[in-house]
Amino acid sequence: MKILVTGAAGFIGSNVVDAFLAEGHEVTGYDNFSTGRLEFLESARHSERFTLLEADLEDRGKLNAAVAGRDLIVHLAANADVRFGTLHPRKDLDQNTICTWNVLEAMRQGGAGRIAFSSTGSVYGEPEVFPTPEDAPFPVQRSLYGASKLAAEGLICAYAEAYGMEAHIFRFVSLLGERYTHGHVVDFFRQLRDHPDRLHVLGNGKQRKSYLHVGDCVRAMRMALEKARGKVNVFNLGTDEYCEVNDSIGWICNLLGVSPTIAYGGGERGWIGDSPFIFLDCRKIRSLGWKPELRIKEAVELTVRYLQANPAVTA
Amino acid sequence: MKILVTGAAGFIGSNVVDAFLAEGHEVTGYDNFSTGRLEFLESARHSERFTLLEADLEDRGKLNAAVAGRDLIVHLAANADVRFGTLHPRKDLDQNTICTWNVLEAMRQGGAGRIAFSSTGSVYGEPEVFPTPEDAPFPVQRSLYGASKLAAEGLICAYAEAYGMEAHIFRFVSLLGERYTHGHVVDFFRQLRDHPDRLHVLGNGKQRKSYLHVGDCVRAMRMALEKARGKVNVFNLGTDEYCEVNDSIGWICNLLGVSPTIAYGGGERGWIGDSPFIFLDCRKIRSLGWKPELRIKEAVELTVRYLQANPAVTA
Repeated sequence: MKILVTGAAGFIGSNVVDAFLAEGHEVTGYDNFSTGRLEFLESARHSERFTLLEADLEDRGKLNAAVAGRDLIVHLAANADVRFGTLHPRKDLDQNTICTWNVLEAMRQGGAGRIAFSSTGSVYGEPEVFPTPEDAPFPVQRSLYGASKLAAEGLICAYAEAYGMEAHIFRFVSLLGERYTHGHVVDFFRQLRDHPDRLHVLGNGKQRKSYLHVGDCVRAMRMALEKARGKVNVFNLGTDEYCEVNDSIGWICNLLGVSPTIAYGGGERGWIGDSPFIFLDCRKIRSLGWKPELRIKEAVELTVRYLQANPAVTA
Repeated sequence: MKILVTGAAGFIGSNVVDAFLAEGHEVTGYDNFSTGRLEFLESARHSERFTLLEADLEDRGKLNAAVAGRDLIVHLAANADVRFGTLHPRKDLDQNTICTWNVLEAMRQGGAGRIAFSSTGSVYGEPEVFPTPEDAPFPVQRSLYGASKLAAEGLICAYAEAYGMEAHIFRFVSLLGERYTHGHVVDFFRQLRDHPDRLHVLGNGKQRKSYLHVGDCVRAMRMALEKARGKVNVFNLGTDEYCEVNDSIGWICNLLGVSPTIAYGGGERGWIGDSPFIFLDCRKIRSLGWKPELRIKEAVELTVRYLQANPAVTA
């Protein structure tokens, strides 16, 4: 297949690129390098089947040219900065919703028929059903990030219906692993590197979250793309477990050999719009034969080891 | 209260303006007159408590000035042209989603804290539960119109959470009544006026739809605004019944005294993204004490009489 990956130089994007190259596909990476890192594409760039385009999704001329003739668009580019959404209330709309429309419109005009999209468990808001299935009760949005991803999902579904496209929508829990660059593990790692004796934690530490290793995530996406061929295919991607932030702190401190004094910001939520409990029902993707190879504790530990081995990421 | 109504010169907007003026409020109408009609505001313009602003929601300077200091924003302006959405795939995003963001951002900057929003039963896509309640299973969008309204709902909820606003989201069935300007009754009325012997019907005529008279709708909105004071208040607004398109054709033909030959376009849906069955569960709004005064048949007949008495509307 000829595959275009947007956000190709990001955490998930670069892992997706490597996986598709390993399968023998022809892959074009599209990234504006606002947060992407060229070094994440180091191995990809050794492949003759890989092309890199440095461009923004707001540059519709370049986007249209990149999309035309592809068999599959894996649209991962996004503002993934959930926590500070309220400080720049237009950013999620621009980068996550309108840029997704740009991708869809380029597909329509260029005759590209398949899209895979990285959505988020945040679209469930603060659900009342746990684990939360794909057909959970109609959610109320709590964050600009979640709202922007929900809006993008809606556009993708409407385009699939109107213009005969095929869509795969993946609602991720938080991902961990190689090339991880933001989130609580990086935050704690940085803090403990700079002052091993103290750790500041947002919220009360009792937030319950689910995590998935990026390798397991990419395997799940590839399996869904191969086996689920409806018009709109929505999948939760996560593990069948969750942990408290405090559990994660324990694993990280243990690995780093530190015993910091912990100061909690307080409150059930880490920030406005944070969901105090994320735990997705993943029976649908499991029914295709996938299951995660790594547990949350292992994924956290691998991430810490990756950050230790790659100091440039947290420099 | 000081109330701003966007889309004030439209079908629903002008009815809302009249109702709030009758209650003694100070009302500013905002409309770009792309589809609004000045004559719908004829009685409003006799009130000293009414001000009309001719402006576009894309003109953020004018919008910000209009929003600042209002107690309530009733945001009804929208592209309501559901049927031809696939011909102009950016229009719903621009007019329904991004313009809603403009309104929310004007509210945030101007310190306005309450918004009422006209959403649609189309956000349920093609539901599997009938009548469809507000917390129906997470829907898959089928139309650009539905997707754009869902996106607007998400933005409203996220703003309510992030910036302490109060939101009322109303998911309407199709409305009928005075100042109705588009939809199947106008379409059939026009056709039968021009050639009483034949009628072209989209789909197979068996589409099941629910309708609500605009007067009942406006009463429901006012009641919800008064009695439901949560952060986000979502209400379906409809009648506890539905009819087939063929039923409606019978009532209209009977009233007009015509017996046309009917040609069906065929298929379950009137157009791409049309939902063949819309029937909303309205127990939530009914629990506040509201109930519709008019049945669907009466609403259709009143609409035909209105169109007969106001030939300019279908000129």
